[in-house]
Amino acid sequence: MSNDFFSTSNRIKSTPFTSRNNMAGVKKYSVYNNTLIPTVFRSLKSDYFHLIKHVQIWDVCCQKVIEVRGNNALSLMKYLFCRDFSKIVSGKSYYAPIVNFEGGLLNDPVVFCVEKDHFLISLSDSDLFNWVSAINHTKEFYADVNETDILTIAIQGPKSEKLISKIFGEEIKFLKYFNFKKFFFNKESLIISKTGFSKQSGYEILLTNPNNGILLWDLIMEKGKEFNIKVGCPNMIERVENNLLSYGNEMTNKDTPYDCGLGKFCNLETEYEYIGKSSLLKQKQVGFEKDIFKIHFNYEFDDQPIFFNNLPVFKKGIEIGKATSIVWSPKYSKYIGFLIASKKIMNNLNDYYILDKGKFEVSEIL
Amino acid sequence: MSNDFFSTSNRIKSTPFTSRNNMAGVKKYSVYNNTLIPTVFRSLKSDYFHLIKHVQIWDVCCQKVIEVRGNNALSLMKYLFCRDFSKIVSGKSYYAPIVNFEGGLLNDPVVFCVEKDHFLISLSDSDLFNWVSAINHTKEFYADVNETDILTIAIQGPKSEKLISKIFGEEIKFLKYFNFKKFFFNKESLIISKTGFSKQSGYEILLTNPNNGILLWDLIMEKGKEFNIKVGCPNMIERVENNLLSYGNEMTNKDTPYDCGLGKFCNLETEYEYIGKSSLLKQKQVGFEKDIFKIHFNYEFDDQPIFFNNLPVFKKGIEIGKATSIVWSPKYSKYIGFLIASKKIMNNLNDYYILDKGKFEVSEIL
Repeated sequence: MSNDFFSTSNRIKSTPFTSRNNMAGVKKYSVYNNTLIPTVFRSLKSDYFHLIKHVQIWDVCCQKVIEVRGNNALSLMKYLFCRDFSKIVSGKSYYAPIVNFEGGLLNDPVVFCVEKDHFLISLSDSDLFNWVSAINHTKEFYADVNETDILTIAIQGPKSEKLISKIFGEEIKFLKYFNFKKFFFNKESLIISKTGFSKQSGYEILLTNPNNGILLWDLIMEKGKEFNIKVGCPNMIERVENNLLSYGNEMTNKDTPYDCGLGKFCNLETEYEYIGKSSLLKQKQVGFEKDIFKIHFNYEFDDQPIFFNNLPVFKKGIEIGKATSIVWSPKYSKYIGFLIASKKIMNNLNDYYILDKGKFEVSEIL
Repeated sequence: MSNDFFSTSNRIKSTPFTSRNNMAGVKKYSVYNNTLIPTVFRSLKSDYFHLIKHVQIWDVCCQKVIEVRGNNALSLMKYLFCRDFSKIVSGKSYYAPIVNFEGGLLNDPVVFCVEKDHFLISLSDSDLFNWVSAINHTKEFYADVNETDILTIAIQGPKSEKLISKIFGEEIKFLKYFNFKKFFFNKESLIISKTGFSKQSGYEILLTNPNNGILLWDLIMEKGKEFNIKVGCPNMIERVENNLLSYGNEMTNKDTPYDCGLGKFCNLETEYEYIGKSSLLKQKQVGFEKDIFKIHFNYEFDDQPIFFNNLPVFKKGIEIGKATSIVWSPKYSKYIGFLIASKKIMNNLNDYYILDKGKFEVSEIL
């Protein structure tokens, strides 16, 4: 099936679950960290309504995982990330922006603190391994930094807790948001984390054995029948409605965390140095130039595409930026999306902002 | 058109020439450096026969280009690459492996020496920008290192010289292999280099203005009519027949240049240090463990797939590696491909090597 969409090669990896996606009738794939990721099963809208009502299983093996271990692991992690890791706790996971020396975002991974000398970095879509390796070596941390074969399955949706406790027992109900625990399946340990790329509540399961992966996938599908489980994938409508940003879509290495609402995950008052800190401090002094805006607009024309990748945004005829991830929202009965733009230009939110050469009007900017 | 193959997004870029590929009836795309690259137009075989007889125009904008400039640019380049750059000459391009501190391949780009303080690195499929930036900063070179918007068009095939001299004049006939020159088109400068990912002779054109890109593309198509030009793409059959390796397919960061026949592009006797040199020297002392082998085999079964991504290779029932980029070769009337494997295991080339659980026999190993 994937053969119809893509020219497959060693460069673009399928996953142990690609066959399961295909069996479930995946309609479209994308590529994320050189790995196939499904993007649509029935339709964006139908997938969305199912996700917010029931439970889905997702193949998110594209969330490649880097492992950092050893005596200097924590020192390296503190030097790499903007988030204050001085009080990091094992068993917790952390959404953590990572920037270059100029403060530009390189990735926005979730960091799992397995032990104080053992971390997993679950990546969004950019190759961070070369960066981490280079810093580790040139700054003489010499921690053990490795690409892993960890496979990630996500269970997302309001019925996810009922389903997962049926398989792994009642104690999982006590797992708090951004906490994780080791469990056993088929005599091998795996990690279950209360995280995931939706706001419908859910879990991510990290495991290493592909055979166990398939066994577990099939068991989840079997046990999930009573909850109306379907194979799904991160849903563009759901994530935009809930302000979940996507690295490479909304923000790139041209944006700082403060340019896109991720400043709350950075600490510029740490007692230690980290990459980008001095640059971000300088920018803070003069004021961060950009901000991220949510746009809502009505659409007056006949064709109704379910989404637009990019739409130029105009103020009085001058293009001020590109709106991203624009999608039809059933919840708001409007198109919604994001815009990173200069705060100065966006000072008067009552101005009209005309998109796509006059086709649309922005009715609201949040 | 690309919408039928891929779920498009900001993460996966189309190019200014994607519309031209679509108009020409592209059948399949892949993703390379987060950018669309066509892989098949008519069929692999039909594209192949056309390429080795006529001339093709390729959209290879996926060959992302990093620019390195400034006083310390040459010092940085020498520290980054295994190839001896102490006598680098402006106007020449260099196929140059780049490795990590352990000697593992990170990329095998073509480096253009524009001036002694100005380099372009035209990448194969891996994100090298983070690596170069990290080294540049932590090792305090502070050269200007930037991602560029350079667009690359390739003109490949035996009739490429006739076609390109018709557009840019007779002097281009004096351009030697791996040399390049500045030319002007529509009052803007561009680079034409006698390079490309085929062995059929050809050129790569590097330019920055997308409007000029389309103008030039259409002019090449117009002037190319008498040479039977077609829109094409790097052809798997042609490259495997001619031993052109593809980063991510044949070799990864688990292989050194010496493991895959690229030792001739490295110099372990430079008078200066570079990344990976000490590690490669150590490995040389004990002997490099692996080598790359060309495999040829007959196929006895009814179905005749045009290619296989990967086939496990067995020696006396034990898997010794995976053969890559296996494709039906019209020239040899056999399947051909590559295998990186331990030299020790491959010591007796007269042994049988059974692929794919006994389905095939290797008839020849070069």
